[in-house]
This record gives sequence, structure tokens and C-alpha cells, in this order.
Amino acid sequence: MQAVDRLKAGALAAEAVAAALVELELYSAPASNACTHILLDDDSPFTNAGMGSNLNLSGEIECDASIMDGKSLHYGAVGAISGIKNPVLVANRLLSEAQKGKLSAGRIPPCFLVGRGAHDWAVGHGIPPCPSEKMATKFSLSAYKRNKRKMALAEKMDTGHNHAKKRRQSSETENGSGCLDTVGAVVVDSEGNVAAAVSSGGLAMKHPGRVGQAAHYGCGCWAENAFNNPYSTAVSTSGCGEHLIRTMLARECSAALQSEDAHKALLEAMQNKFISSPFLAGEDRVLGGVIVLRCCRCVESPPSQNIQGILVEFLWSHTTESMCVGYMSAQDSKAKTHISRLPPGTVPGQCLAIEGGVCRLSVAE
Amino acid sequence: MQAVDRLKAGALAAEAVAAALVELELYSAPASNACTHILLDDDSPFTNAGMGSNLNLSGEIECDASIMDGKSLHYGAVGAISGIKNPVLVANRLLSEAQKGKLSAGRIPPCFLVGRGAHDWAVGHGIPPCPSEKMATKFSLSAYKRNKRKMALAEKMDTGHNHAKKRRQSSETENGSGCLDTVGAVVVDSEGNVAAAVSSGGLAMKHPGRVGQAAHYGCGCWAENAFNNPYSTAVSTSGCGEHLIRTMLARECSAALQSEDAHKALLEAMQNKFISSPFLAGEDRVLGGVIVLRCCRCVESPPSQNIQGILVEFLWSHTTESMCVGYMSAQDSKAKTHISRLPPGTVPGQCLAIEGGVCRLSVAE
Repeated sequence: MQAVDRLKAGALAAEAVAAALVELELYSAPASNACTHILLDDDSPFTNAGMGSNLNLSGEIECDASIMDGKSLHYGAVGAISGIKNPVLVANRLLSEAQKGKLSAGRIPPCFLVGRGAHDWAVGHGIPPCPSEKMATKFSLSAYKRNKRKMALAEKMDTGHNHAKKRRQSSETENGSGCLDTVGAVVVDSEGNVAAAVSSGGLAMKHPGRVGQAAHYGCGCWAENAFNNPYSTAVSTSGCGEHLIRTMLARECSAALQSEDAHKALLEAMQNKFISSPFLAGEDRVLGGVIVLRCCRCVESPPSQNIQGILVEFLWSHTTESMCVGYMSAQDSKAKTHISRLPPGTVPGQCLAIEGGVCRLSVAE
Repeated sequence: MQAVDRLKAGALAAEAVAAALVELELYSAPASNACTHILLDDDSPFTNAGMGSNLNLSGEIECDASIMDGKSLHYGAVGAISGIKNPVLVANRLLSEAQKGKLSAGRIPPCFLVGRGAHDWAVGHGIPPCPSEKMATKFSLSAYKRNKRKMALAEKMDTGHNHAKKRRQSSETENGSGCLDTVGAVVVDSEGNVAAAVSSGGLAMKHPGRVGQAAHYGCGCWAENAFNNPYSTAVSTSGCGEHLIRTMLARECSAALQSEDAHKALLEAMQNKFISSPFLAGEDRVLGGVIVLRCCRCVESPPSQNIQGILVEFLWSHTTESMCVGYMSAQDSKAKTHISRLPPGTVPGQCLAIEGGVCRLSVAE
């Protein structure tokens, strides 16, 4: 996978995380690809990101993506962008342009662009446009037709009853497709820098111009090198955008993970800051998932050799029925993939699954 | 002022804060109007919000606005919206629509809309469009022409030198206009509910599609009723959007204000989470301001009468040269206004001013 190759060639985490996302956005393929020190999060056989994304209410594809570099703490995001194959590349370019400092006449470079302006900025910076008819796939088009029928039926059923009231109650025809199949990645490079990225086509049948968590600062992804904290953390989220936005889940998980026991910290964050969050009081099903990377430097045994290592904990947790995760370190020849599921008999949106692992990366002094 | 009248008529904080913003957006007038329990923040003789906003690089007006209701913790925002006189009304409508629950076929209502889609949603919900030629004022058009000349000059000076390097260094021609003249308001109603809102035309000469802090969750405004915390807080920010975004200043101030001494808490937040924030390392001038409301219930003397009161602290702080603040309680017949300035000899972006006051609202049991 390209991200692994880039890391081996000495790329920093931010570059690798963008490369990982591009692969996931591009091929709309199962999440069986996974990268060096990367967790991939992709809850659909066909990814809802970039090409092949969900169509909105007008039958168009509008994508959200963002990336955060834990070393510089810079951030780049695009929202409701059309006609670009790899939205995360635009987010990444915004990040790297911002790192160069001010524009002419002292103007501050933007970190978040949306809509037509984002598209034009991307093209102006050498990112090729993609005609909209090439953005949609057979799969996304047939899902759109199915959803259109479903909506027409739901609205027809409402007519004749108390319309306003009914409209608000018809949650039983939950729009399954496209809600949870965002792609995300978290990375640590050989210097211990972390980065995180996320990319999503957003909710199927969303209103044009709707921006989901994947473009929201603190909500779709978060990455923060240790600095004054004990741990470096990188988080990427997927699920129902508005739930992830209002709970600012990526940043909340990152902050929680500064306490000693990572597993316990993530469990409590998912329980208290998501499922039972006061920000989501009244929501019957709180759907989301996170992939998390937490790193700290440690001295390898025997300590006399003074070889530094990086202890890497990777965890994932979700309240959705399932979440697909892949991971790989530079030592691995192949990615490991895993479909995480809620325990049998538990209710999605009210219960959670949490899993993870630990590895150690050697770093010569 | 309308917001005061609404509060007197029993409106909740969120409704009043929207009304306050509309007045500020509409009249592009000095901030000599201020509302019941409201602080107004408006650092320009002509407000940069809604009509009369700064023009972007293409000569268009694109506005950002958001509102948060501390009682429901719901939030609504619009970004890069054109052709709407009062962007905050759209944000407020998004908030109230989201409070009604799900849409047809179980779709989750959006909390953030951008660009053309935001405009169309607004018009579809009965908010009248405004032709773009009516959005610009003489003042904003002449500022645009001036800025165009300034940029052309700056770019001409770059040619012939090392372009890339020069471009990044030409910060001396700081684009003064439009950076700091966002309008914001924070409100507490007679039940002790808080709300906050913010509206901005964004940076002058910004790239089309650029979204600033006024539309960023946690960055432009924040409001949270007490719930499990000792204090209810409402915060609204203005200043350089990207600085306020990357530091998530509204939410940081709100969190800091849960410690006992409000003045000390705000001072430390502005110093440690803004001026010296690791998120802005490398920035030479960190420009921004906040208006803050903090409330808690208290028993009025004599306690035997069991009359509850609300102790309201209002504070403001800024690293900009100046900030204009107005405030008014239901007991007042007229708003008080005040231009806060940095102490003489101090450097904007490196030093701060902080001021405030306390009042007590009586609430019958």
C-alpha cells in the first residue's frame, strides 16, 4: 500500500495518512488494504468517500474531508466539494499551504473551504477536476433511486395524517445506506509524529450544502503530538455526522486518552461523551465509531543499549452494528483486517464494542 | 432594541440572541445598540456581517453565522452563504428545525449548511433572498477597490525577487479591513438559559468558499446551561478566523469559566489557550476577542424570603487594538456601550485587555 511505502521512504505521518485515504477514496473497494501503523475505518463494501459517494437530494455528489498533522497542529478541510476525485488531497494541500505562512498583502491562508470555491481553489492548485458523471458509480446511482422511492413512500404515508407530527416520527425507515461508511486513517511515523484524516460522501439524500463531521474541526479527526502531554494521539471518526459534530467526538477521545489506561479511557469517553452525552439527550440511537492511535516513547530492553522505542496502542470502538478496521506496521508484509461487531443481543446506538492492540516500534537514538 | 423587547415578552435566550444579531447585521451601524443581558461585540463603524460585509477575492459577499442554545445544546450554522440579508436567521432556523427531530425517511436534519445549498434551504424555509447588488454597500465596495490595489501592489513588489519566499513574508501590508468586525451576542433570559450567536462577512479578499470561525462549531460561539457544571456560560468570539478556529476559543473559554474566579479564568484562557497556544506557535500576532456571560443561581438576601436570583458576570477580553462592547439588562432603559482598548504601549496580538462587570437578576420562585 502506498502509505506504507511512503513511510518507509521517510515520509512524515501527515503525508502518509493522506496517501492512505486517497487509496480508500479512489478504489471504492473493500477495506482489505491497510497501511503502516494505520487503522482504516470503512464500514461498507463500497466506500462512501470521493468517487462512488452517496448522492444528495439533488442527485449530486458533495464530499467532506479533513486532515490534521499532530506535529504542526495544522489542519485542512473541505466541505460539500463536488467534482474532485480525492477530496482529502485538497484538505491536505490546504494544510501544507497554510504551513507556508501568509499570502500576499498579509492575508491569512484559509484552513477550510467549501463548495464551488473549494473546487476552484483545488483546480487552481493543480488538482485535476473530475466530471460529475464519473464521480457516481452504478452502486451509488442505484442506491439513490432506491432512496428516492423510499422517501416518496414515507412522504406519501405522511399525507392525510397530521403531516408535521408524522414527518418527525417516521424514523423507522432509517436510511441505512451511506450513514456509516466514511473512510478514516490514523498514522504514526518513525519519528513518533501522528496524523489523522477522514473523508466522506456524507449522508445519502442529504440536503445540498450539508457539511458533516468529516469537515468539522475536532469532530472528524484529531491529531496531537505529545508536547506537554504524556501521549501523542490520533483519532478518526465515522457515523452519523450530526452526532459526531455535536459531541466533538474526535477531540474528546483525544483528550480522554491522556489518562493512563487507554482502554478504560476510550470506553468511558464513548459511554459518557457519546452514548450518554448531554449534547445528544433525546436521540434514541447514537451511532458512531472511532479509530484511535496513542503513542509514547519508551526505552527498549536492555536499557543499557539506550535504544528508544515507540509504544503504539491502537484501539477502535463503535456503537454501530459493525465496523471494519485494518492495520499494518512497517514490519508487516501484509495488512491485518478485522470486522468488529457489537456483542450479540446488544442494541446499536445504545451499546458499544471496544477492541485494540499494542505494538512497539524501534527507533535508533 | 428588539432583543430586549422579546426577552421582556418572555422569549427564551436563543430567540433573543438571534434578534440581537439581526439588528447588528441589518443596519451596518455602530454598536451603540445593545440588548437585555446582552453583550455586543462589534469592532467597526460599519459591521462586517450580512449586508455590507467584506467582499471576497471575486467581489462577492459570502457570510458565516452560527447560534447555540445553551438549554437544548442545539447548534445551527451557515457558511459562505450569499444573497441572504441575515445569515444568523438561517442558522437560527436550522437550530429550530433540528430541535423538531428527524426528517422524512428517518433522515437526520442538518446543523451546518454552506454555499448555494444553504441559500436554497433558507429560501425554501421562507427566508427571503436578497439580490447581491443590494448586499454590498458603498463602504464595502470602496474597501474592495482599495484592497485590490493593495494586493496588486504587493504582488508586483514580489515579482523580480524570490517570489515564493517574498509572498510569504509580505505580512507588513496587513489587510486591516474586515478582520475583526464580526458581530456577536451573548444572552441570559429570565429563566437563566444562555445563548450565544455570531455573524461575520469574513476576511476581506478571502478566497471564495472560505469559511471562518463564525460558522465553526466551538469556535465562533458557545452556550451551555449549567446541567452538571456550577455555571452556565455563553461566549462569542471575533478576530482572525483561522486563529479562533485552530484554538477553538469559544469552547475553551466556556470550559475555563467553570473555575471559581471568572476574571482569572478568562485571563488565563486568553493567555494560555490563545496568545501562547501551541496551536498558534509561529504566529507573530494572535488577534481575537471574546465576550463572555457566566451565570449561576443564588439566593437573594434576606434568604428567608426565598427569592432566587441569577448572578450574571459579563466579561470581555481582546488582543486586538480595540473592541466595542454594549450591554443592557431588562432593568435598563438604555444600553451601555464601551470601547475597550489595549493599555497604551502594549502590542496587539501579544498583550490583552480584560474588563467586565456583575449584575443580579431577580427571579421569583
